[in-house]
Amino acid sequence: MRPPFVHPNALCESASIGPGTRVWAFAHVLPGAVLGADNNICDGVFIENDVVTGDRVTVKCGVQLWDGLRVEDDVFIGPNATFTNDMFPRSRVQRAALPPTTLRRGCSIGANATILPGLTVGPGAMVGAGTVITTDVPANAVVVGNPTRIVGYADAEALAGPLDLPPGAPCAAVRAEVHRDARGRLSHWPLETALPFTPRRLYVVDGAPDGWARGGGAYRRSHQLLVATQGALTIAVDDGRTRMAVRLSGPEAGLHVPPGTWTLQYGHTPDASLLVLASEPFDPAERVSDYAAFAGWA
Amino acid sequence: MRPPFVHPNALCESASIGPGTRVWAFAHVLPGAVLGADNNICDGVFIENDVVTGDRVTVKCGVQLWDGLRVEDDVFIGPNATFTNDMFPRSRVQRAALPPTTLRRGCSIGANATILPGLTVGPGAMVGAGTVITTDVPANAVVVGNPTRIVGYADAEALAGPLDLPPGAPCAAVRAEVHRDARGRLSHWPLETALPFTPRRLYVVDGAPDGWARGGGAYRRSHQLLVATQGALTIAVDDGRTRMAVRLSGPEAGLHVPPGTWTLQYGHTPDASLLVLASEPFDPAERVSDYAAFAGWA
Amino acid sequence: MRPPFVHPNALCESASIGPGTRVWAFAHVLPGAVLGADNNICDGVFIENDVVTGDRVTVKCGVQLWDGLRVEDDVFIGPNATFTNDMFPRSRVQRAALPPTTLRRGCSIGANATILPGLTVGPGAMVGAGTVITTDVPANAVVVGNPTRIVGYADAEALAGPLDLPPGAPCAAVRAEVHRDARGRLSHWPLETALPFTPRRLYVVDGAPDGWARGGGAYRRSHQLLVATQGALTIAVDDGRTRMAVRLSGPEAGLHVPPGTWTLQYGHTPDASLLVLASEPFDPAERVSDYAAFAGWA
Amino acid sequence: MRPPFVHPNALCESASIGPGTRVWAFAHVLPGAVLGADNNICDGVFIENDVVTGDRVTVKCGVQLWDGLRVEDDVFIGPNATFTNDMFPRSRVQRAALPPTTLRRGCSIGANATILPGLTVGPGAMVGAGTVITTDVPANAVVVGNPTRIVGYADAEALAGPLDLPPGAPCAAVRAEVHRDARGRLSHWPLETALPFTPRRLYVVDGAPDGWARGGGAYRRSHQLLVATQGALTIAVDDGRTRMAVRLSGPEAGLHVPPGTWTLQYGHTPDASLLVLASEPFDPAERVSDYAAFAGWA
Amino acid sequence: MRPPFVHPNALCESASIGPGTRVWAFAHVLPGAVLGADNNICDGVFIENDVVTGDRVTVKCGVQLWDGLRVEDDVFIGPNATFTNDMFPRSRVQRAALPPTTLRRGCSIGANATILPGLTVGPGAMVGAGTVITTDVPANAVVVGNPTRIVGYADAEALAGPLDLPPGAPCAAVRAEVHRDARGRLSHWPLETALPFTPRRLYVVDGAPDGWARGGGAYRRSHQLLVATQGALTIAVDDGRTRMAVRLSGPEAGLHVPPGTWTLQYGHTPDASLLVLASEPFDPAERVSDYAAFAGWA
Amino acid sequence: MRPPFVHPNALCESASIGPGTRVWAFAHVLPGAVLGADNNICDGVFIENDVVTGDRVTVKCGVQLWDGLRVEDDVFIGPNATFTNDMFPRSRVQRAALPPTTLRRGCSIGANATILPGLTVGPGAMVGAGTVITTDVPANAVVVGNPTRIVGYADAEALAGPLDLPPGAPCAAVRAEVHRDARGRLSHWPLETALPFTPRRLYVVDGAPDGWARGGGAYRRSHQLLVATQGALTIAVDDGRTRMAVRLSGPEAGLHVPPGTWTLQYGHTPDASLLVLASEPFDPAERVSDYAAFAGWA
Repeated sequence: MRPPFVHPNALCESASIGPGTRVWAFAHVLPGAVLGADNNICDGVFIENDVVTGDRVTVKCGVQLWDGLRVEDDVFIGPNATFTNDMFPRSRVQRAALPPTTLRRGCSIGANATILPGLTVGPGAMVGAGTVITTDVPANAVVVGNPTRIVGYADAEALAGPLDLPPGAPCAAVRAEVHRDARGRLSHWPLETALPFTPRRLYVVDGAPDGWARGGGAYRRSHQLLVATQGALTIAVDDGRTRMAVRLSGPEAGLHVPPGTWTLQYGHTPDASLLVLASEPFDPAERVSDYAAFAGWA
Repeated sequence: MRPPFVHPNALCESASIGPGTRVWAFAHVLPGAVLGADNNICDGVFIENDVVTGDRVTVKCGVQLWDGLRVEDDVFIGPNATFTNDMFPRSRVQRAALPPTTLRRGCSIGANATILPGLTVGPGAMVGAGTVITTDVPANAVVVGNPTRIVGYADAEALAGPLDLPPGAPCAAVRAEVHRDARGRLSHWPLETALPFTPRRLYVVDGAPDGWARGGGAYRRSHQLLVATQGALTIAVDDGRTRMAVRLSGPEAGLHVPPGTWTLQYGHTPDASLLVLASEPFDPAERVSDYAAFAGWA
Repeated sequence: MRPPFVHPNALCESASIGPGTRVWAFAHVLPGAVLGADNNICDGVFIENDVVTGDRVTVKCGVQLWDGLRVEDDVFIGPNATFTNDMFPRSRVQRAALPPTTLRRGCSIGANATILPGLTVGPGAMVGAGTVITTDVPANAVVVGNPTRIVGYADAEALAGPLDLPPGAPCAAVRAEVHRDARGRLSHWPLETALPFTPRRLYVVDGAPDGWARGGGAYRRSHQLLVATQGALTIAVDDGRTRMAVRLSGPEAGLHVPPGTWTLQYGHTPDASLLVLASEPFDPAERVSDYAAFAGWA
Repeated sequence: MRPPFVHPNALCESASIGPGTRVWAFAHVLPGAVLGADNNICDGVFIENDVVTGDRVTVKCGVQLWDGLRVEDDVFIGPNATFTNDMFPRSRVQRAALPPTTLRRGCSIGANATILPGLTVGPGAMVGAGTVITTDVPANAVVVGNPTRIVGYADAEALAGPLDLPPGAPCAAVRAEVHRDARGRLSHWPLETALPFTPRRLYVVDGAPDGWARGGGAYRRSHQLLVATQGALTIAVDDGRTRMAVRLSGPEAGLHVPPGTWTLQYGHTPDASLLVLASEPFDPAERVSDYAAFAGWA
Repeated sequence: MRPPFVHPNALCESASIGPGTRVWAFAHVLPGAVLGADNNICDGVFIENDVVTGDRVTVKCGVQLWDGLRVEDDVFIGPNATFTNDMFPRSRVQRAALPPTTLRRGCSIGANATILPGLTVGPGAMVGAGTVITTDVPANAVVVGNPTRIVGYADAEALAGPLDLPPGAPCAAVRAEVHRDARGRLSHWPLETALPFTPRRLYVVDGAPDGWARGGGAYRRSHQLLVATQGALTIAVDDGRTRMAVRLSGPEAGLHVPPGTWTLQYGHTPDASLLVLASEPFDPAERVSDYAAFAGWA
Repeated sequence: MRPPFVHPNALCESASIGPGTRVWAFAHVLPGAVLGADNNICDGVFIENDVVTGDRVTVKCGVQLWDGLRVEDDVFIGPNATFTNDMFPRSRVQRAALPPTTLRRGCSIGANATILPGLTVGPGAMVGAGTVITTDVPANAVVVGNPTRIVGYADAEALAGPLDLPPGAPCAAVRAEVHRDARGRLSHWPLETALPFTPRRLYVVDGAPDGWARGGGAYRRSHQLLVATQGALTIAVDDGRTRMAVRLSGPEAGLHVPPGTWTLQYGHTPDASLLVLASEPFDPAERVSDYAAFAGWA
């Protein structure tokens, strides 16, 4: 049994501190807080009562965890990162219900980042230093800036070139037959031979807000062909073992994504238009939109 | 028998003048010219030797028909319209072969228009007054300006509103299920229920030059769904009996065109991207690209 | 009495030719045409039956005057200028009623210009050589190009600089007090001291089509202050004796136009917004919109 | 009498602590600081000597209040919010006079916000989390982002639609007579009938910096008509009882604001041009530019 | 001796017709005209008195040559091409002096082109069909469109690629040393080694009107280095034996033009900025700006 | 001998604290840290083991100095400024080598700024409050914003107007002879008379990233002429005694910079193109790019 460690200059009023957890100098933990095992609570951290942390959580110096915060296993919170629980705070005005903030398993909050109230940071996400988060962050997304933009997918393997997919990739490039002449460009997909499935559903997605994501999820049965007919965007593809981020631009080539593969779209140019052909009619029951469930983490 | 009429102030040196044809004052027809029946050759027209006209052709004042011009039945040529047969003329330089100019059945050349060498004006086309033509004109296209733009399809019926097709129209509007939220717009086409055919071919067409056409032709067997996923363009639809010009803009609705229907695309915005789903694999033999053959005029 | 002159190589079938009018070689006048006095009908001109010309009209070589054309006194028509009377001509198709074309007193049609059917060219207007006219031309406007733009006002006096109005000008510059600081630019008009009238009407005019005119007319009683608060445009000002064309740009200065003064606006930049203060409530009866009536020509 | 509370782990060296005020663990208050009643000074806060706070002030964890800071009643300061008192700090360089920072009554400073030296945050203003403030914040303004933009007016009532003002609104929509035709759009304001006052002053305001405000203040005697002749902007209108934020865009309608009404302009598009007609000649004495005085709070 | 030929239906009132010249039906030549040898004056042409043509001139049907026109040897004038001699013609208003039009040796005027008054079309120039010429045309320039643009240099040899100059070219590419890194692009020209001359004069030329030319001429002594530091433009280079048109774009490479070489600049993008280094101080006497003199034709 | 001062509420575990250094309440210094003389370590600061500071360093409240940080003499670190040493931190993941952060002599880090891992802030640089630094900062640069931009050069003297250089300035304005006509603007530099040196090297620099710097350095022997032929940019000029920041825009004037002068370029408009003429051939040995060496500080 590894008992928790509390520095003599810390104030730890809670009895619910997990084994192996350390609380350092000038930190202050209120009585109601519940901390998991092997946490590292650094100098000057302040933790209110209605806070629960998982195991192996790191909270660097200068951070406060307010009532309503839920921190899952393996989360990292950088120095001076700042949380909130009231969108329009006024002195001595108590809101009836404070919106909770949830940090999902394995995510990281960068140094001096600011998190607005009521948000969820997805599992594995990476919030850059100095970022101001104003909306939920998808699973594994890497976000930076103010306003915030998604700029990557955590742990995605680098590609040698656009659509230059290595063996074992969780998706495949599918190229059109392209004809150019004075009348313009014609990109032809003979469906029966170009695709490994019969399309039964067509989507066109456009108007995605600049710099933000959509589509985080996986289909259980549907194959998909994704083509950026206009503009460009990035598709993160993740089969639970291998992760890649593939940039699509223009109608000359698309991406075949097989069933059981998680995808996330981001990095849309303002004019991006995404064409999706899918092998199954629409059925909400075949869609998985919780990454932890997808990854079998639950 | 209706003999031709030649005004006493005209010079008609040809004996090949069809019945009912009139040649008016100060016109001059060289010996080799062959004119059909019921032509109207107005004051001051000049016709060289290697010229053949069909029946019921009107040539207004101030026009010259140069060697190499072929004029089919029912053509109208407006006053001072000007033809050419040498792209880079120099004095006393004779080209070995002059590019022929062809005016197809029933087309009209507007007053004071200029026609560059070697072009074909399609059947039924309408060239606006003052236009300078630098490329072939598709069947039934209405063209104006300098540079020239297609602005209509001759004799197309007016629509009450965009995609507001009357009963008996040669095509049908097909609307997507549209979902909008903060992540953008998603236009969904459940293929099995939304379309009266199974798609076996996908085209994406973009980069069409501003103001010009592509796709004049008809398929014998293919159904098509046409959607302007980005920008806008006009599809002229013509089943040989009824003509319509339908403006498409955006992914929320498309046009079903059945087999045996002539279409012409024009009026592309610079960003226009056209998605086409067709019911048959690509087969050049099923395509008719001569309007006269399509209309059974031959 | 000065009899008309007809060249021996001309064909003049009309008996209604005014005194002093000359008809030159290879010209052809049909029996119904009515020509005024002192016309000059040059070589190769063709005139149909339903044509009436005023006095002192010049028609240069290569021109045809079609049925429906009305030409007032003192009009000039340049060589090879081309008129039309059918917007969509087809061979051997006769329209029930052809739209008339009217050339108002003293206007000029440039060489090789093309005039679409049914238009009126205003009194004193100047249509540039090679221009294709697709809309009515205001009184005294100078127009060029394809598409056509108004580029001047005939016989306007040149200014030494923007708003540098000479003594005796038919209008006056009125300058604002301008204050600039970090918050922007503030243009202040103390109305009681800056204007020689009490404003009783305010207009804001914007969205004027690029290159075309509005506002041809005069008020009998209203004073006006005109300010281009955004963009730029030109105001032609004409009191029947003196004509000026004044460029306005930006809110720092405007133009006072007294009653009884004809104005025409043109040369708008795409963002032009015109503010008008006037001394009288709106009264259509005080507005004169026929230039000939304004000039006392009638 | 409610004595102040000082946590045993706090260092409170000042004796000027108001009744009911609490000072929590690891906070440090220097001897010269003067704190009002019912303040809440949270963990880790540091307060220098030349600091004065009013009553009911909240200072969350991780905040420092530097010499020169004045905090009025009812102010909220979020966690890790950071103040400054030297624009160009250098180690061991003491400025002769440090610019004071003033937080006016009832304002809120969001979590992790940064406040540059010498600024005043107006009464009732709401500074968003993570914002970097580089200029004064007007009364009641809601500001976010970096660079900072005004995005709202605190406690303004929502409108059902643009210019859809409810009964009892502190201002009134005034619509122009609008005429559109091929020549453009004409917006006509017959001043005598459209306005409830006689205009004696005209402003045109443009070039306002993107995203910032101007015009916070009220006139004692002047009526105003405000029209966004170009672009768009928002006018916050506040009569001390009711607050509204009205979006103006284009010359077709304006806003009548009666005397004794506070207004603030913000949300200018880059091309915004604001026309103002006012009922009085310019007189600085009639303008109130301190919101507290306007609201009778002083 | 080859006598001139006059068609019996022509009216030739001049006795100054050169040997071998033919005048065809319905043409009309006034008494004062002076025509050179081997002209071909086609049907319906009208020639006034104050007109002089050189040898081997072709005038196609429907053309008028007005007083003041001078036509040098080997000129081609296409059908219905239209000349003018009064910029602002009014009926029965005679200008004291009409601006002359000059067609220099070997130029061609395309069918239905319009030539405004007082212009000179340079030697060897090619004016496209339907073009409206409003300014002088440089020697050998190929011009089309309305407004007119220079699109080529007559008889220029094609290059295999940009700056891919063949042996014997009248100019040489000079490449900069280019360094790119995250700070940008640096193009370095070590003058002593990169250039075969010592620069003594530097020009920066920008703001050239879109589509038109400048700089037609040659220096007797100056070497030049030309670099398009911004945008792009074309330099026609002509040493009297070989002609090339070289597209310059960007600061990475320039063109060395030796003395005694004719150059013409055209095809400027709107942002084009041309840097010129020359080997001699400015001396107007060293510049030749008449192409005929340059070519030793005089 | 001045011993260090440690507040009784501080935790100072290191013995390597320089004379005169003060460590204030709730600060915590780990055993391995090495602090110089006369440091001021304020309340709540946390300093790890592998940290070295120079003399006269100020660290304000709420700052942490992590392993790998090197702080030179005279550095100022504002309150809540936040450092990092892992670009992609994960809980309980230790990087083999952490990238060091270096703060060079005399620089200042503004309040609440965020410094990404592995960066160097140059000597004398001034990092604005709230800034997020993602790249190295040049010597003496003043940077603000997110993304960060250089907006000034520390301690540069103000100019009365553009290129209005006072006596004793370390550089001189050189003006071109400018000619404007219908063909555009021509800026002529007669090199022999306009410059005090003979140019032997020419640079064209464009494509500089928006808002960032290039060219920090000095030449030992080269004179330079700098001209912004397109767009605009600022040249900071510093001879070790006097500093100026000169804005260049357009080809009509440039800047002569003598040898031994440090320059830094920043504030480029997107289209900025800089022409540089220099008196010496390229020689890397004559370039000094370390400001401390330039200033004789080493």
